[in-house]
Amino acid sequence: MSIKKRSKKAGLAPGTLIHMGRAKSGATRIDLVEYDESHLEARPVKSIEQCLVKKPLPTVTWVNVDGLADLEVLRHFGSCYGIHPLVLEDILATDQRPKAADYGEYLYVVLKMITLDAESGELRSEQVSLVLGQNYLISFQEGLEGDVFEQVRSRLNNEQARLRAMGPDFLLHALLDVIVDHYFLVLEQLADSIEDIEDELIGNPTPATVQSIYQLKRQMLFLHKALWPLREVASGLQRRDSQLIRDTTVIYLRDLYDHTVQVLDTLETLREMLSGMLDIYLSSVSNRLNEVMKVLTIIATIFMPLSFLVGLYGMNFKYMPELEWHYGYFMVLLLSALIGGGMLFYFKKRRWI
Amino acid sequence: MSIKKRSKKAGLAPGTLIHMGRAKSGATRIDLVEYDESHLEARPVKSIEQCLVKKPLPTVTWVNVDGLADLEVLRHFGSCYGIHPLVLEDILATDQRPKAADYGEYLYVVLKMITLDAESGELRSEQVSLVLGQNYLISFQEGLEGDVFEQVRSRLNNEQARLRAMGPDFLLHALLDVIVDHYFLVLEQLADSIEDIEDELIGNPTPATVQSIYQLKRQMLFLHKALWPLREVASGLQRRDSQLIRDTTVIYLRDLYDHTVQVLDTLETLREMLSGMLDIYLSSVSNRLNEVMKVLTIIATIFMPLSFLVGLYGMNFKYMPELEWHYGYFMVLLLSALIGGGMLFYFKKRRWI
Amino acid sequence: MSIKKRSKKAGLAPGTLIHMGRAKSGATRIDLVEYDESHLEARPVKSIEQCLVKKPLPTVTWVNVDGLADLEVLRHFGSCYGIHPLVLEDILATDQRPKAADYGEYLYVVLKMITLDAESGELRSEQVSLVLGQNYLISFQEGLEGDVFEQVRSRLNNEQARLRAMGPDFLLHALLDVIVDHYFLVLEQLADSIEDIEDELIGNPTPATVQSIYQLKRQMLFLHKALWPLREVASGLQRRDSQLIRDTTVIYLRDLYDHTVQVLDTLETLREMLSGMLDIYLSSVSNRLNEVMKVLTIIATIFMPLSFLVGLYGMNFKYMPELEWHYGYFMVLLLSALIGGGMLFYFKKRRWI
Amino acid sequence: MSIKKRSKKAGLAPGTLIHMGRAKSGATRIDLVEYDESHLEARPVKSIEQCLVKKPLPTVTWVNVDGLADLEVLRHFGSCYGIHPLVLEDILATDQRPKAADYGEYLYVVLKMITLDAESGELRSEQVSLVLGQNYLISFQEGLEGDVFEQVRSRLNNEQARLRAMGPDFLLHALLDVIVDHYFLVLEQLADSIEDIEDELIGNPTPATVQSIYQLKRQMLFLHKALWPLREVASGLQRRDSQLIRDTTVIYLRDLYDHTVQVLDTLETLREMLSGMLDIYLSSVSNRLNEVMKVLTIIATIFMPLSFLVGLYGMNFKYMPELEWHYGYFMVLLLSALIGGGMLFYFKKRRWI
Amino acid sequence: MSIKKRSKKAGLAPGTLIHMGRAKSGATRIDLVEYDESHLEARPVKSIEQCLVKKPLPTVTWVNVDGLADLEVLRHFGSCYGIHPLVLEDILATDQRPKAADYGEYLYVVLKMITLDAESGELRSEQVSLVLGQNYLISFQEGLEGDVFEQVRSRLNNEQARLRAMGPDFLLHALLDVIVDHYFLVLEQLADSIEDIEDELIGNPTPATVQSIYQLKRQMLFLHKALWPLREVASGLQRRDSQLIRDTTVIYLRDLYDHTVQVLDTLETLREMLSGMLDIYLSSVSNRLNEVMKVLTIIATIFMPLSFLVGLYGMNFKYMPELEWHYGYFMVLLLSALIGGGMLFYFKKRRWI
Repeated sequence: MSIKKRSKKAGLAPGTLIHMGRAKSGATRIDLVEYDESHLEARPVKSIEQCLVKKPLPTVTWVNVDGLADLEVLRHFGSCYGIHPLVLEDILATDQRPKAADYGEYLYVVLKMITLDAESGELRSEQVSLVLGQNYLISFQEGLEGDVFEQVRSRLNNEQARLRAMGPDFLLHALLDVIVDHYFLVLEQLADSIEDIEDELIGNPTPATVQSIYQLKRQMLFLHKALWPLREVASGLQRRDSQLIRDTTVIYLRDLYDHTVQVLDTLETLREMLSGMLDIYLSSVSNRLNEVMKVLTIIATIFMPLSFLVGLYGMNFKYMPELEWHYGYFMVLLLSALIGGGMLFYFKKRRWI
Repeated sequence: MSIKKRSKKAGLAPGTLIHMGRAKSGATRIDLVEYDESHLEARPVKSIEQCLVKKPLPTVTWVNVDGLADLEVLRHFGSCYGIHPLVLEDILATDQRPKAADYGEYLYVVLKMITLDAESGELRSEQVSLVLGQNYLISFQEGLEGDVFEQVRSRLNNEQARLRAMGPDFLLHALLDVIVDHYFLVLEQLADSIEDIEDELIGNPTPATVQSIYQLKRQMLFLHKALWPLREVASGLQRRDSQLIRDTTVIYLRDLYDHTVQVLDTLETLREMLSGMLDIYLSSVSNRLNEVMKVLTIIATIFMPLSFLVGLYGMNFKYMPELEWHYGYFMVLLLSALIGGGMLFYFKKRRWI
Repeated sequence: MSIKKRSKKAGLAPGTLIHMGRAKSGATRIDLVEYDESHLEARPVKSIEQCLVKKPLPTVTWVNVDGLADLEVLRHFGSCYGIHPLVLEDILATDQRPKAADYGEYLYVVLKMITLDAESGELRSEQVSLVLGQNYLISFQEGLEGDVFEQVRSRLNNEQARLRAMGPDFLLHALLDVIVDHYFLVLEQLADSIEDIEDELIGNPTPATVQSIYQLKRQMLFLHKALWPLREVASGLQRRDSQLIRDTTVIYLRDLYDHTVQVLDTLETLREMLSGMLDIYLSSVSNRLNEVMKVLTIIATIFMPLSFLVGLYGMNFKYMPELEWHYGYFMVLLLSALIGGGMLFYFKKRRWI
Repeated sequence: MSIKKRSKKAGLAPGTLIHMGRAKSGATRIDLVEYDESHLEARPVKSIEQCLVKKPLPTVTWVNVDGLADLEVLRHFGSCYGIHPLVLEDILATDQRPKAADYGEYLYVVLKMITLDAESGELRSEQVSLVLGQNYLISFQEGLEGDVFEQVRSRLNNEQARLRAMGPDFLLHALLDVIVDHYFLVLEQLADSIEDIEDELIGNPTPATVQSIYQLKRQMLFLHKALWPLREVASGLQRRDSQLIRDTTVIYLRDLYDHTVQVLDTLETLREMLSGMLDIYLSSVSNRLNEVMKVLTIIATIFMPLSFLVGLYGMNFKYMPELEWHYGYFMVLLLSALIGGGMLFYFKKRRWI
Repeated sequence: MSIKKRSKKAGLAPGTLIHMGRAKSGATRIDLVEYDESHLEARPVKSIEQCLVKKPLPTVTWVNVDGLADLEVLRHFGSCYGIHPLVLEDILATDQRPKAADYGEYLYVVLKMITLDAESGELRSEQVSLVLGQNYLISFQEGLEGDVFEQVRSRLNNEQARLRAMGPDFLLHALLDVIVDHYFLVLEQLADSIEDIEDELIGNPTPATVQSIYQLKRQMLFLHKALWPLREVASGLQRRDSQLIRDTTVIYLRDLYDHTVQVLDTLETLREMLSGMLDIYLSSVSNRLNEVMKVLTIIATIFMPLSFLVGLYGMNFKYMPELEWHYGYFMVLLLSALIGGGMLFYFKKRRWI
């Protein structure tokens, strides 16, 4: 969740390919799916000697690249599809701000796949780059957290699916839609955490509650940074800025935009819910301090005068008439009870007890 | 008031119909009203074998669907009126952000009906979807909290009502107007709660007051999320973005827009009123802590020196000249009174008492 | 200053006339002034059987309606001048947001007259509606707080006044100008209150100071809600959106706009001044708590060791060599003085005293 | 620095001349400078019987009016140069919001000269009005704080100065530039004050520090109100909205705009620096309270058990075996040392001491 | 990191050259690089008698000026390349707000090079001015912190570099890119500091932690002021506002814009992370105060009643029956144990211990 080390790129020529991600090791996996309404062929790609797509066929080709460690693969795609070196650099620089850029021949979309690690409770983010051409779509994943596009792949297997009848722009929508739907999942989990903390705040707030609030705040901040630019991306796609987007897909992209706005709305609502919580905690701590101080004050206010009283008759003066008196001791006991009772009555009246 | 579980939809194809609401059980009720200036016919619809509206009649048809559990009904409406699967999906996904979308043939408006549960003091929200066609209007309610459109129905029964003389766009306005008017009702109730809390804050603030403030803040947040997008909706309708809105209705939609802005203004004012309250509470807690500490300090400052004094003459030294003195004891009593009085005078001067 | 009960209108047809104000009782007073450069006729109107203005005369007619209780009067004006039912409804709904709406034939402006009740220190607001026609202006006041337009009336009596030579749009400006000028008056009074509180904060802050700050904050909030939309109103008028505004008047409306912006600037400055005050109060309370605690700690730190010392020699052990010593008692006294002095020196060094 | 009494104008006709400033007494001084590239004539104006500028000469005429008490002077300028009564009113109303207004024949610019009183540390503001015509510029100062335009006057005396070769619009720029440069001076002085307070906060914060922070906050607020509208003014001038601004001057006005933006940037930076300071102070007060309480607790925790111990052996029971023991007293001393030492060790472990 | 003394310029004519930086001493170093695809010549410039670039050659000339002390050099460049005096003034005034200004013949870009001093942890800023002409680029550095353009120079030595094949606008991009990349470096270092503070906050917060938070806040503020305007600069360059920017360079400037937005995003995220930290600290201080007070209260609540008890039997009354009782002393001991144990049990139940 920390800031990526972009500094190792400082001063290099733009377009120099350097991988910034964590999973430098691990093989790069390439999967290819070719489909139209009636046919579908899916196979892993072993070697990348030839360009995978080039022929002007009516089929749609989807190449999914999992893992960015093999720079050779990237260079190959670059030269095959005429992808600009700066785009290749962006694909590797896995701290990209979500954006959509139209390069005429192809459309480049980059965004984050977010998952919440169930054990550590930490957010993980994986960069997903999508290059949409006339009849192909290439997707690049960092390859860290399992394949998020499995659901789309299984929908493709269904011949009746609208996905099969439409172009690669609809496939782009399907992939983006899967990612945005996952954001809802993450936000729901965070909302559950927030409700747990609310219960804690009411029931028995501890310093650990503050830690949880702070952790959630950071996660919200992280999500805010990762998701906020998406609004612009979705809005741009829906306005059909690029001619690679067909008319029939626009209505679906508008739907995607609505979902994105909803995600951001929910995110902001959660952030505002969190923002007031620390004040509640502080007021609860103040209240407990008040309670503690009341106990101390009550005890001191009752026993300090009494201690003075008994100390008085512990003095060794020769001439102290009361000491001789037979009921002196009982008078002191009575007086002590009166003082103690009076104090208690006073505190009751003040609503301290 | 919590975040809806949208995650169960993650990864499904867009347009897949899944109901997200609470009231999955319970029958779906359909009511049909056909009217023009001179005639009105209202009847419940038992079976939906035929399309309810299709004929190009001059009458206005209003179909009200109460309850979203029966997906078959929705599919029927979808095919009869050519409603896009994404719209049907939105009708079912009851966590929609308020919006108005023009699909050419029809206009889709979705917003929230808000009610404040009198007993639990919780806000409830029910999604209302409205589909406006050339000569019909279909309204979908979740069917949770009684029929909010009863008032419009009774106005329709009045032959003199302007409602009867105008098209379905005016009916759309009437339904929206009823909903926005209900927002005022909810805001007034919340304003009353806020004034109660203000009185509490001045009179006798307790930790429970903080809970109330926090609950109200959450409710405001909930309302903010549910109502804020409405401004855009009302503004769009009033600008007559769609050709289904007639000129004569525009002035009424402008009025609706004014009301919406007023609702949002009031909401923001209430939020700001709440935002300062926790500080008032904290300052009141601090003040009381100060009071408690003053009492403790006064008591300690008076009796600690006195205890020392009487302890001094409780010592068992062989040679302590004062002990022999006849007035020694009385001198100690006098000295104690002087010390105690002096301290009280000092605190009085410092305005502690 | 509370939120008006708009809920009683919920569900009624738009254009239904219901009065929402406080002063339902009390007669409605109508005054008519007809003037041009050379003539002026002012008279109260007893009955409203005929339309007051209709003839296309070069004179300007100003009808001022004081009190909104008589719905018949309103309906009469509605039919005489072709005022839309929604406008009539707005005139009666005295919680209108300030706005200016152009209806072609006439221009409708609604805003608030604000006064500060000298005794209770509460803000009062009265809705003023202005309907500007080709050769007439009708003003509606709630009729609560005296006639605010007296100053304009007396200026009209002066034959030399520019007001006499110009049209009803200039009269509109004159009335708006009087109202905006009154805002300055109210803001000055509130600024005085704020300076009083500042002096209190520095001199002797009490819990009552917090109350005053909170009251002022609420009043600022109230003013913010009442005045903020005015910027848009004044800006629209100055841009000459309506053709009922003559060119010669525009320069005066620009001046009005400048004044409005100045009012809002001052309001925001006052709000920001208030916003920091509670923090000052809290820091002052914390400081005083610190002072109290220091006194307590100094006393305890001096006398607790001393009490132990004298308690030590109050023990009844058989064999305690010091007790036999002739100067034992004086040594204890000396030791006590040394301990006490040492503590005081220590606290001095720590700058506690 | 307080809010000006605009209320005395309430209800007067617009264009009524009333002076709102402080320096009502004191003579009005008028200075005239006529210059072109080769000639310069500067002289005080004693009587204003004739119009000072009217002839269409190629020379530039600069009339500087110091002091606004003499309304006759203003009326004279008004009639001579056709200045609109509302502009004259604005010149006198010395609480104007900075603005630039184009009246075709002339351009009216009003802004604030700000100075920081070295002794009281208070900000003073003086209104400066500038009327730019085809071949003249009239400047009006309140005449409170010395002549701020002296520097421009001496530059005019230099025949080589670019100022001499250019029109009155360049003179306008020169005067505005002098004023904006003075803002930097004031901001630097305030920045010094802020750094002093920072040192205090770190070294030895006192309640007086809070006062200083609050005073600076108010001054920032005052500056914000006085300077913020200037951005718009400078931006408008630079866009060459008026035809009285020549092309060659535009590049200088763009420079002026840059300076203005820089002033506002610095102002906002200073405001943000201040905004966090009170929190630092509060955390420092809390820390010191913690320290005080630790001392108290340490003392009490050590001596309360000891007092109980010695009190125990001060009891007068007949049968207390320890009292008879020869080493009883020394055991008590040893025990006391152990208890005290143990407590100290415990507090050391807890890092309290 | 403090505010620069711009005041010494107050009142001078615009275009007057005065150096505001720190490094007034120190020689001005001039380096010249001439290159095209096949040739490259780099040499230091000793004397500046002739204009360095003037001939319309196809080579690109890059003049780098290090140090601004020698005003003569600047004047020379001014007259050789027709640079406006105001631009020269801006180059010297080293507190410029980042901006890009198009002067037709040349484009002027000014921004800040930021470095973080490793030892003191302070941010240093050096102003970099770039003047882009048709076939030349002149860069001005303050010359404080080593040559930041070394990396670009070494890239120029590589004949294959794209840099060699393109115009001076691409060189401009390269220089800007190096500077923006350095911002990432600085932000990463600050992010590390923030994570250190987070660990401190959780582990063992001290008053020094508050100091660190405050220092970081100031640094963020400093960066915000220095970097925020850059967005506008990069956005303007990418929109190709100037005709000195060739089409082939635009895509690289768009990339630069993306990087700039990413820098600002990261900066804001860091600022928000910091903003919540002081609250965490305060809540931790409050918690510790609570702990301290609990210890005090527990001790006092146990030993005050006990002290009263033993004081009671230390009284010297003649008639106190318990004193005679053989087990009196042991009863007191037992009672003391019961009271102490009871109190401990009570505190355990309240979860104080």
